[in-house]
Amino acid sequence: MPKHRLTTPGPTQVPEQALLAMARQVTHHRTPEFRCLLAEVLADLKHVFVTENDVLLLTCSGTGAMEAAVVNLVPHGGKAIVLSSGKFSERWAEICEKFGIRPVRYEVPWGQPFEPGRVEQLLRQHPDAVAVFSTLMETSTGVGHDIKGIGQVVGRSDALLVVDGISGVGATECRTDAWGIDVLVVGAQKALMTPPGLALLAVSPAAWQQIESIDRPAFYFDLPAYRKALRGPNTPYTPAIPLVAALAESLRSIRSEGIEQVWARASLLSRATRAGIEALGLELFAARPADGMTAVRFPEGIDGKALLGRLQQRFGVKLAGGQGPVAGKIFRIAQMGLCDELDVISTLSAIELVLVEMGQPAKLGAGVTAASRVLAQTGGELCPHPGASDEAAAELRR
Amino acid sequence: MPKHRLTTPGPTQVPEQALLAMARQVTHHRTPEFRCLLAEVLADLKHVFVTENDVLLLTCSGTGAMEAAVVNLVPHGGKAIVLSSGKFSERWAEICEKFGIRPVRYEVPWGQPFEPGRVEQLLRQHPDAVAVFSTLMETSTGVGHDIKGIGQVVGRSDALLVVDGISGVGATECRTDAWGIDVLVVGAQKALMTPPGLALLAVSPAAWQQIESIDRPAFYFDLPAYRKALRGPNTPYTPAIPLVAALAESLRSIRSEGIEQVWARASLLSRATRAGIEALGLELFAARPADGMTAVRFPEGIDGKALLGRLQQRFGVKLAGGQGPVAGKIFRIAQMGLCDELDVISTLSAIELVLVEMGQPAKLGAGVTAASRVLAQTGGELCPHPGASDEAAAELRR
Repeated sequence: MPKHRLTTPGPTQVPEQALLAMARQVTHHRTPEFRCLLAEVLADLKHVFVTENDVLLLTCSGTGAMEAAVVNLVPHGGKAIVLSSGKFSERWAEICEKFGIRPVRYEVPWGQPFEPGRVEQLLRQHPDAVAVFSTLMETSTGVGHDIKGIGQVVGRSDALLVVDGISGVGATECRTDAWGIDVLVVGAQKALMTPPGLALLAVSPAAWQQIESIDRPAFYFDLPAYRKALRGPNTPYTPAIPLVAALAESLRSIRSEGIEQVWARASLLSRATRAGIEALGLELFAARPADGMTAVRFPEGIDGKALLGRLQQRFGVKLAGGQGPVAGKIFRIAQMGLCDELDVISTLSAIELVLVEMGQPAKLGAGVTAASRVLAQTGGELCPHPGASDEAAAELRR
Repeated sequence: MPKHRLTTPGPTQVPEQALLAMARQVTHHRTPEFRCLLAEVLADLKHVFVTENDVLLLTCSGTGAMEAAVVNLVPHGGKAIVLSSGKFSERWAEICEKFGIRPVRYEVPWGQPFEPGRVEQLLRQHPDAVAVFSTLMETSTGVGHDIKGIGQVVGRSDALLVVDGISGVGATECRTDAWGIDVLVVGAQKALMTPPGLALLAVSPAAWQQIESIDRPAFYFDLPAYRKALRGPNTPYTPAIPLVAALAESLRSIRSEGIEQVWARASLLSRATRAGIEALGLELFAARPADGMTAVRFPEGIDGKALLGRLQQRFGVKLAGGQGPVAGKIFRIAQMGLCDELDVISTLSAIELVLVEMGQPAKLGAGVTAASRVLAQTGGELCPHPGASDEAAAELRR
């Protein structure tokens, strides 16, 4: 029975309680039981997103929710500023173009962050832009963008701020209301530790005002229908019921810790990973690395695909490679969700061992040692493992 | 521990093997394992749909796949014939209107079937109609439409035939290729015995030709992206991985029986249910009832909501009420998927007992007796329960 160690930035590993919730017989969604479950999920999501805005639940991938944000906010022929820094932020522009919306691109090279000052200039040059589409964590490069800073400059304009937080939210700090995010898009299969199939949107009153002022080519993604269904609360179309049950379990665990502690853990594990990677003589790819994910350049002259394949065959460690222009040039390790200190150590150890096996000059133990030094600075309070006390046992029996 | 007997026309009960498949740890979708799983699912779906056409898998509700069919086939400003006979067939027209497509409606009263001759007339009057949107089983009324007959008249025109088989396919006979269905839309949460969250499309070469000839306001639902991903096979965006694993299990069971046998069972169980309902003095709602679902008028003077509530409280039997104009007037019982002879008997018995408790003139035992007479005509070969033979035990251990 080989062990599988899924360490990609989505899908991520799902807690046992969430997996078991999916093994229960399906119930109907037009029932008090489902409304009760959904109400709990939506309340917990508000905690995780740090928002009082409406939270909507869609059955689709994150891309579907990105489309929903675009077509509900910007009319055909309208203009939007798109901050593009990799595969997923560029997707905002692709969606805009598909729907006859003119994207004004602010492009930075892959691996680089956006500068809020440049966003401010663009907003001045394009006062007719309806929205700024940006990204919290660019999953293709591991960059964590300065959404707080971007939110300040967008807040001084008439444009709405839309943030793709699909892979970032729940790992890296994101304060929806305080930072002025009008529409936050989130995927459940990343830091929210739920299998793929659900996407979430948090929509501000200002965004609703814009949504209601335009006609849109949307039926399944027509957001006012989801808002109306919130009265149940319910969803306008049949939702992926077992995934909602799984999400409820994962959110219970996040909420019981508190989102600030969850962010702090992802930050600690990411710092430890970065220290380990650099101690191995490898180079980080992101100029401003996000908490929750680490992108690393393959060493010169190594066959990246062979390295990733060997990590999986030898140790069951599944990492993500690069996409598009960085395919074969980088690999990506997640530090989000169900990830703790020893997962970081194991992953670094596997990388060390495989690098040495492949004839690379990595020093055995250097990566795990450097990471351990970072981890040793905390007393372990960020990665609690409740011991076998009577209280913990009673809790598990409930 | 009260028993739950979900007997609605979607979501339906899910087999144990499919539930357990969802409890497995999530794997990544860009892997040989997932491609292998998806290839098996797509091959089994071709068997169930009786088609050689491309089958596409989308993560969304059935409504999302209906939207995909509309926007990929008919351009803005184009014309389509919509056969409208209830809540779900009328949705075709609503989607068309949302996307600037002119629906020419052929409306029949709720509970009535379409006449192929009338469709032929409309096609002659509207030779510029790109497609005919129709429905195999109207879930809101229980009518099974004559898609074979409609397919013959559409086949003599230039229009494409699109069929909403969301709740019908896998229960009532549907021969995609032989009947000339260009786009078949199916939901996994009905007769395919999978939790909600996946929709399927079978797309003919003629439909692909039309799809490639137009521009469409679609990104998440852009079908050529799904077709391209079939080469993996894979999906363009992250799919609901555990639901695909569950679908694979349910399809294995359908395929091992053969779709013809599965149709025959739904037909038998539906005939038994109809006989039982009529023996109870209740009236069937559909003029042409579909195999797989039975819609029944509430008796005069009874509080329908109270009856359904009592069925659930007293016996855990969850039936569906009516929607829209027939809310409070009808209720609906599914005979699809994980439903066998004794489920039919149990449901009829629960209805009998509750009717009598509510002071209705139903004769105790009349419904189950009439249903039993229908069931007794077969030797049980349509509802196999493998006995505890050594072979069956060995199979279960595999």
